[in-house]
Amino acid sequence: MPSEWDTHTSVTATGDGLFGAELDPGWVVGGGVNGGYLLGILGRAVAESVPAKPHPLSVSAYYLSASTPGPAQVSTRVLREGGSVATVAAELGQEGVTRITALATYGDLRAMHGDVATTAEEPALPPIEECVPGTMAPEEVRRIAPLMERFDIRFDPACVGWAMGAPSGNGLIQGWFRMADGHDVDPVGLLMVCDALPPVTFDLGLPGWAPTLELTVHVRAVPTPGWLKVSHRTRNVAGGMFEEDCEVWDSAGRLVAQSRQLAMQPRR
Amino acid sequence: MPSEWDTHTSVTATGDGLFGAELDPGWVVGGGVNGGYLLGILGRAVAESVPAKPHPLSVSAYYLSASTPGPAQVSTRVLREGGSVATVAAELGQEGVTRITALATYGDLRAMHGDVATTAEEPALPPIEECVPGTMAPEEVRRIAPLMERFDIRFDPACVGWAMGAPSGNGLIQGWFRMADGHDVDPVGLLMVCDALPPVTFDLGLPGWAPTLELTVHVRAVPTPGWLKVSHRTRNVAGGMFEEDCEVWDSAGRLVAQSRQLAMQPRR
Repeated sequence: MPSEWDTHTSVTATGDGLFGAELDPGWVVGGGVNGGYLLGILGRAVAESVPAKPHPLSVSAYYLSASTPGPAQVSTRVLREGGSVATVAAELGQEGVTRITALATYGDLRAMHGDVATTAEEPALPPIEECVPGTMAPEEVRRIAPLMERFDIRFDPACVGWAMGAPSGNGLIQGWFRMADGHDVDPVGLLMVCDALPPVTFDLGLPGWAPTLELTVHVRAVPTPGWLKVSHRTRNVAGGMFEEDCEVWDSAGRLVAQSRQLAMQPRR
Repeated sequence: MPSEWDTHTSVTATGDGLFGAELDPGWVVGGGVNGGYLLGILGRAVAESVPAKPHPLSVSAYYLSASTPGPAQVSTRVLREGGSVATVAAELGQEGVTRITALATYGDLRAMHGDVATTAEEPALPPIEECVPGTMAPEEVRRIAPLMERFDIRFDPACVGWAMGAPSGNGLIQGWFRMADGHDVDPVGLLMVCDALPPVTFDLGLPGWAPTLELTVHVRAVPTPGWLKVSHRTRNVAGGMFEEDCEVWDSAGRLVAQSRQLAMQPRR
């Protein structure tokens, strides 16, 4: 049985470098469709455009306008393919209006060799059963964020004060993550995981929508099946913007994705 | 008198969204032209394409082929301009071959308001006069890297062991930075500063060229004139690649630019 993710992100070739997709209403959050989900659809179209390079190594997306559930189109243009990597330009649009424009370099992570030397430290999370499930969010939150039904997130209790009106002020949100249907996340799925948690500004006492200007994800390994650990952190709020750094660690303790986005600060 | 940087990065409009440039041989390093310099030229062409939005907020560049000194062409395409930001696609090519393709969002950093809350910590550097000037590099290094003559870099002595065959292994290179001609760095210049220091892999005992796949720079403020502090750090070497995070701090102690690149690991 295909996973919900595979079904919701499926794309159909409609021409040379052209794909049709259907934005599922289950990914709505607030007034728009989750940016990570959109990037997943775009990422699948890119993968189909360069079949010998199935995995994103780096994807940079610029968000131009808010999406709505319903039909969408993806166009891809291979800029260079040779050796072990391919670079592709891609756009996701609706009715002729571009929603996201992106550049991507794809390769085959299984064929990438080399030592692993990671000095980054895995998020220190309490055991899953001591963490706070996203399903405990208030009904009024879940109503405007059906997105939350897609995931099984268990938040670090030290980072959920914002849900009770007492944000820590540290600029850190982290937790355990898996898909609600229990299917494992593949490399394209990691593009979505990097934008799945609430904006880290919640932890700074700034609730509200934080529109992404730019999001770059580096996928560094095929994740080992099982629970993922995800952290979102910001260290520089300035000029009405903030950066959000995300790390995704797999069940084998590998740092499988690193992302940074630049987003507009929510209005107080 | 114009700065060397302004002269070397000047672009001439040759059509609608088309610009001519001349890649100066003074920016060669090893077998190619420095990627940060190329990004500066591309960044200037973007600024000229959206005059009301003079400053890069975010630029993501994908490097497709190595450049050589001589004529180059930049094409820009405005994807969206409205409100306070504009998003532009840009390519830098030579004789019809694309060298860099990029996406960029520009705005006016002087018009961006909001609190500044930075928890990132400024690099701890010894006083300038206790640091190691780049001019102390061996003659054979300087011969293949005329790039080094463009800058006045004073390296933190704790991070230059690699120059004496004793890399620290920490994955950190940092130092004081200014242009050799004493001119201050503007926001477009910060795109270059983020790729000016030697690859951080030198500090891991991996000398040699580290080809950039992708580089994204976020410019967060107009730098206050004076010496900059620049750090390069890597925390995840894996799959034959590494990420390099750069921070640039100005003389007023503000974190004015943050960048991350994904690069290929040099061969041992």
